Amino acid sequence: MNNLNAGIIIIGDEVLSGRTQDTNSNFISKELVKSGIDLHEIRVIKDNEKTIIDTVLDFKERFMYVFTTGGIGPTHDDITSESIAKAFKRKYCLSPDAYNILEKYYIGKDFSKSRQKMAMMPENVDLILNPLTAAPGFIIENVYVLPGVPQILKVMFLNIVKNLKRGKPKKILTINTNLFESVIANRLGVIQKNNQECTIGSYPYFNFSSKVGGVNLVISSWTLESLDPIYEEIKSMITLLGGKYSIV
Amino acid sequence: MNNLNAGIIIIGDEVLSGRTQDTNSNFISKELVKSGIDLHEIRVIKDNEKTIIDTVLDFKERFMYVFTTGGIGPTHDDITSESIAKAFKRKYCLSPDAYNILEKYYIGKDFSKSRQKMAMMPENVDLILNPLTAAPGFIIENVYVLPGVPQILKVMFLNIVKNLKRGKPKKILTINTNLFESVIANRLGVIQKNNQECTIGSYPYFNFSSKVGGVNLVISSWTLESLDPIYEEIKSMITLLGGKYSIV
Repeated sequence: MNNLNAGIIIIGDEVLSGRTQDTNSNFISKELVKSGIDLHEIRVIKDNEKTIIDTVLDFKERFMYVFTTGGIGPTHDDITSESIAKAFKRKYCLSPDAYNILEKYYIGKDFSKSRQKMAMMPENVDLILNPLTAAPGFIIENVYVLPGVPQILKVMFLNIVKNLKRGKPKKILTINTNLFESVIANRLGVIQKNNQECTIGSYPYFNFSSKVGGVNLVISSWTLESLDPIYEEIKSMITLLGGKYSIV
Repeated sequence: MNNLNAGIIIIGDEVLSGRTQDTNSNFISKELVKSGIDLHEIRVIKDNEKTIIDTVLDFKERFMYVFTTGGIGPTHDDITSESIAKAFKRKYCLSPDAYNILEKYYIGKDFSKSRQKMAMMPENVDLILNPLTAAPGFIIENVYVLPGVPQILKVMFLNIVKNLKRGKPKKILTINTNLFESVIANRLGVIQKNNQECTIGSYPYFNFSSKVGGVNLVISSWTLESLDPIYEEIKSMITLLGGKYSIV
């Protein structure tokens, strides 16, 4: 159990159509684990105003931190910022700070209406700086609004993650075995039952060409000081069943 | 608009912890586009009984087709089938058909209790056959329950997609240009406004080492017979703005 929790909202028709493989949520997930923040849900939704509003309102109540990605660029299909302003019933207007940043970035170039649009946000938000392409994201209450382009998202996320509350990181240990799931299932279930303070996940894999398969067992706990005793139990179980093991 | 729609539920702590990059939803998304089925939402949730029940009940009302992946194996953390039985208020019991399939597959091996667990399902469901590792998925009303291992999921999904209602496939055309989003945003917005029967998505990319960037413009429509007139408008716009274009 962990009272620091989070949800991710991926806003993007391009993910739902399969055109784009979302990798942003995987990046954010890993960073949250390191920070001791428990990610409860990832939701991929359409670029649709009502859907964005409903999802943001739902998430901001349920989670301590909410991260959105996508839809804050200059084109007509970038409707995230305006939708979020509506969700929070705030004015959608030009942020003077964002305007200044963009004006400097486009110095000597045409600082067009479209480019100025990237300074349009809900009123009174904190900016999330973008060292790569200038256009900032923003923080409104517990919602962090980020872009969809993975390289830009990564740099911006690493800047904000430092300022989030940090929990005790989850202890995680992954053990690989060449035994199949159905061979270990029974005894593994007993080990899980006897160790309620940890979660043991069992993730099978199988390479159909090489015919090599096995299972990765992931022991994790928010509370235990050490996973060693459970690791010992699992090692003994694998040996008893005639299998091999290694730490991944 | 399309009245054939779908939602995907990815059940997996391993995705939320960042350990596993989900690729199943991307695979399913692409197949649904080909079948003319409009994917509205992807949700990644925890291996938690209440969460699974609530999400399945919500999705089955909102979407014509619901696909779940993950949590139907033999280990203690595989709780999807039992949770779905509870969601539908059906008995969770041994499917005789699934039992027969598994018994044959494990002939000469130990058909253990753990292996038999993979035949446990809600009562009165249709099986989804698994030609690779035997353990079947199942269909309960409009919910299709599939495994999480990508190679197995793919084969099983291709078997069921043939039997889904097919819509008129969405027409999609992707145009690449070397112009930046902020350069085309204004005129592109006008083209979108004048062509309400299509959706024009604008997806920028930028390679920070080679400094090469541009935009992919995705024109899509469920209703138009041809996207050519819009393609012509976009080509003219790009030429006018001094850019290059190509079909992707």
